Amino acid sequence: MTKKELIAQIRQKQSFLCVGLDTDLKKMPQHLLSEEDPIFAFNRDIIDATAPYCVAYKPNLAFYEAFGLKGIMAFEKTIAYLSSHYPDHFVIADAKRGDIGNTSKMYARTFFETYNVDALTVAPYMGEDSVTPFLGYDGKWVVLLALTSNKGSHDFQLTADAEGERLFERVMRQSQQWATDEQMMYVVGATQGRMFEDIRRIAPNHFLLVPGVGAQGGSLEEVCHYGMTADCGLLVNSSRGIIYASQGEDFAHVAAEKAQELQQQMAQELAKL
Amino acid sequence: MTKKELIAQIRQKQSFLCVGLDTDLKKMPQHLLSEEDPIFAFNRDIIDATAPYCVAYKPNLAFYEAFGLKGIMAFEKTIAYLSSHYPDHFVIADAKRGDIGNTSKMYARTFFETYNVDALTVAPYMGEDSVTPFLGYDGKWVVLLALTSNKGSHDFQLTADAEGERLFERVMRQSQQWATDEQMMYVVGATQGRMFEDIRRIAPNHFLLVPGVGAQGGSLEEVCHYGMTADCGLLVNSSRGIIYASQGEDFAHVAAEKAQELQQQMAQELAKL
Repeated sequence: MTKKELIAQIRQKQSFLCVGLDTDLKKMPQHLLSEEDPIFAFNRDIIDATAPYCVAYKPNLAFYEAFGLKGIMAFEKTIAYLSSHYPDHFVIADAKRGDIGNTSKMYARTFFETYNVDALTVAPYMGEDSVTPFLGYDGKWVVLLALTSNKGSHDFQLTADAEGERLFERVMRQSQQWATDEQMMYVVGATQGRMFEDIRRIAPNHFLLVPGVGAQGGSLEEVCHYGMTADCGLLVNSSRGIIYASQGEDFAHVAAEKAQELQQQMAQELAKL
Repeated sequence: MTKKELIAQIRQKQSFLCVGLDTDLKKMPQHLLSEEDPIFAFNRDIIDATAPYCVAYKPNLAFYEAFGLKGIMAFEKTIAYLSSHYPDHFVIADAKRGDIGNTSKMYARTFFETYNVDALTVAPYMGEDSVTPFLGYDGKWVVLLALTSNKGSHDFQLTADAEGERLFERVMRQSQQWATDEQMMYVVGATQGRMFEDIRRIAPNHFLLVPGVGAQGGSLEEVCHYGMTADCGLLVNSSRGIIYASQGEDFAHVAAEKAQELQQQMAQELAKL
């Protein structure tokens, strides 16, 4: 999906919501466990219920890999279901890959050829040649970790060099030499608040993938106030706050309500543009 | 496997060789493609041939994931084969994972419970809470990226802060507050040469996993000169230089020869201790 197409989807739906599919057998409604493929059954119902209110889905690979072959099969079925039923939704594989060139090339093949998702989260620690193999695909995106939502983001990402440039700033500045804002987004945690001002100084036009609203405590209003661009420029993710809002038989209905609540707040933010 | 047991294996075999199983259908001997599971068939023959000369195997997940479910099945069979036939070999899953706490916990479950490997490579960018979920397993290891073998290692890992401490040094220093040298190793590329002196100043007793000998151009002699400890403290990995040394029907035999060459050089280095 191109940047233009993504922006058009956001305008049409009045939403920049990404629903995180961190599907966990232990947290899902227990009546689904009798299904042949409970993970896929859960995802399908969540997707059908929330699709009108979001523009993106973000399955988190850790949750699928943890169930071995069955988990991977459920991931493949989920991706295929999205592609056939909701081709206008942007699909981000949250896998945080990144390795030496020949290895990143294999990961790129996996996610952009085998699974054919729109975007992949990538860790920047290993530098340019660990990231560029993901950039050779038209309409596919690298979502590079910049300033993450967790407490550990303070350990290394905020360390300033002798000139005062912090690591996340260096990552964002240097990576702009590798790719344009038509191929690359950055992960910036909603918990980072006013840091979005600094982020926008370095990357005024890039889309940001923003986790951390909801369970992790970030504020949608603050993110929009400091992080929104004229083209929106945000994909705000919520996982647990939507998909586990109810563990009863009404889980899909409640998920839709939670997604719609966020969509309505987002519509208000978009109206300010 | 404990550190003591690993050192005992190194002494007994006079080897600190790790064979990297970066198994690629395109590079393996083509006569194997008629096998039911060519990836596993290749790995099994490589393992049987090289086991006397190495103490560790390192399957690289990227190569298995690239072939979808079949690749994951081949990975599972490889791990099971190692566990049943070569329980004294140390098995490192090279997957470079790392995410927020609840996600890293899922990855830890995958690799240390489902697959039950001895060690996992982990990327440090997201800090403490992305790494500690991997540390709750007796006899299991985190192999944290410090100073990698690729050109991109210069992009961020060597950036010095205001006090002159470089990022890889900060990663090694801070991570020692999270785990002991009985639970954590560091990845340091063989291509880094004299930098091993700096590494040993910060981590005098840790095991280092050293890729980059062979295809990437690192020197075993130099690595040993600057990086070896009284307990050896090194696992030197070679992937392509061993497993693709021949693409003919004699591939396993030639792989054994290459592994033995390295083992003999390693025995000489161990004799200097």
